[in-house]
Amino acid sequence: MRTLNENTITDAVLEQLSGTPNPRFKQIIEAAVRHLHAFAREVNLTPQEWLEGIRFFTEVGQKCTPYRQEFILLSDTLGLSALVGLMSDKRTPGIHTDTSLLGPFYRQNSPRFKLGDSIAKKTKGKEVVLWGRVQDANGRGIPHASIEVWQTDELGDYDMQRPAAEEMDLRGTLESDSEGRYYFRSVVPAGYSIPMDGPVGEMIRAQNRHGLRPSHVHYLIGAPGYKELVTALYIAGDPHIESDTVFGVTDSLVVKVSDPEPASPFPNLPQIKYDFTLSAAGKDEGSGRVGADPSQITKNVAAVH
Amino acid sequence: MRTLNENTITDAVLEQLSGTPNPRFKQIIEAAVRHLHAFAREVNLTPQEWLEGIRFFTEVGQKCTPYRQEFILLSDTLGLSALVGLMSDKRTPGIHTDTSLLGPFYRQNSPRFKLGDSIAKKTKGKEVVLWGRVQDANGRGIPHASIEVWQTDELGDYDMQRPAAEEMDLRGTLESDSEGRYYFRSVVPAGYSIPMDGPVGEMIRAQNRHGLRPSHVHYLIGAPGYKELVTALYIAGDPHIESDTVFGVTDSLVVKVSDPEPASPFPNLPQIKYDFTLSAAGKDEGSGRVGADPSQITKNVAAVH
Repeated sequence: MRTLNENTITDAVLEQLSGTPNPRFKQIIEAAVRHLHAFAREVNLTPQEWLEGIRFFTEVGQKCTPYRQEFILLSDTLGLSALVGLMSDKRTPGIHTDTSLLGPFYRQNSPRFKLGDSIAKKTKGKEVVLWGRVQDANGRGIPHASIEVWQTDELGDYDMQRPAAEEMDLRGTLESDSEGRYYFRSVVPAGYSIPMDGPVGEMIRAQNRHGLRPSHVHYLIGAPGYKELVTALYIAGDPHIESDTVFGVTDSLVVKVSDPEPASPFPNLPQIKYDFTLSAAGKDEGSGRVGADPSQITKNVAAVH
Repeated sequence: MRTLNENTITDAVLEQLSGTPNPRFKQIIEAAVRHLHAFAREVNLTPQEWLEGIRFFTEVGQKCTPYRQEFILLSDTLGLSALVGLMSDKRTPGIHTDTSLLGPFYRQNSPRFKLGDSIAKKTKGKEVVLWGRVQDANGRGIPHASIEVWQTDELGDYDMQRPAAEEMDLRGTLESDSEGRYYFRSVVPAGYSIPMDGPVGEMIRAQNRHGLRPSHVHYLIGAPGYKELVTALYIAGDPHIESDTVFGVTDSLVVKVSDPEPASPFPNLPQIKYDFTLSAAGKDEGSGRVGADPSQITKNVAAVH
């Protein structure tokens, strides 16, 4: 028998975890316990504060529905989602476009479009052409890559936030041509607020944060033999580009809405030009445990929404 | 504009938190972010593992009902609840009985009993007398202290786990006499398993832990001018007393079921004899923020169940 104190209790917990058979799960849960206890000790967490934490996490869980994932929102606003993406990028060898958050507004099976089509049906935004290439690390075009794109309208709303939520708009699936080129028309999206009517919104208000995301266009790009790329392009000049509430902006993903150029497929339209570089599909990085097929990850994320 | 990496992102998040007006909340959320990020970096958390975590927390939140608090169970099984209690004990000045977890089976407004009554109605366990004194740090009896007690039956079930869950049994509220003495009859409780049919149970199985708690009797003792005491007495000899799955056992709270003594109020019954020492109610310790009335804490815990 031993008397536990605020330091020895951590070892007592680790002792009970020592028989965890899966080595990766053991590593993760042991680290989680050590950091959780170190946090509680550092702030000398009181029973009342602990209870407020229990209440908060319970509310976050209970706010989740098939159309809303409040725990992902919490992870996003605390920078954890971005951190996980940055670490994954770093483990991916070779030249490749940086990733960015998938976010909660991805939908599977968006309508198919032909190159040159407009994905904007019900919107009054400023029309632009988005074009460039999907290429490999050596700059060779990747033919017939699947390009899923989704964005807000000029008011900052995704289709699923409109009254007719089931009607898809401002999203679509295209295919690059035989040389890896893609081009389609849309409108300049507006920035927007994360959902503020739940416990995460309460947290954001208690932190005096604006809760806004800068204007951006989401991309999910895949091709056989390449690692699926989840990313977004951020529109330069948005007032919140330096203070994205979910930390998704990276220099390399900031684009300008620039004047037309003669080579443009729509030489009369302002343009957002960007080349995406995919890395070759390799063995699963990092975990040594989950055979993480990235497209499966995306489907799983879609499934928890 | 700056490019975030897996190290600089933590500072970017802390920068967004820097305007948090409540200094204690700022301290807690900043520490939480630092430790959360340090955990993710230490284990190099992959997107797939992150998603498994999101799923797990979502399920824990969705398992909570007015009669079940899965987040408290998670906190208990990871040793966080015990750690918070140990730190609170340490901050409480002077001599006092150690605290132990309130647990998820407390009920407000349990039936009132007179000293000497039995709190066990529907049970076939071995009868014992539980007696002793409620006293202050100087050993002076505290008259008319409120003593709430609750325990399992000889099968390891609390009343609310029986088919007639609404019928209270093996729990009650007593009052110490004018000299602080208390005595009542009950049966020796059996140890039991924590609820294993939820995500926490899954976690416990994946860790090859038994999920059992040793036999114990819960106490919640209060008197005007004293800090409310939430504790439990653990029965010596239980096979799981060294491996309580929620880390509630402390040396000073282990009691023997011993032979009767002549001074016992029931000199024919085996006895569990224990004196409880309450500390004087002081200013709220620790947080500098919440005016934590401990009895309010208990009520709040009861309310989130």
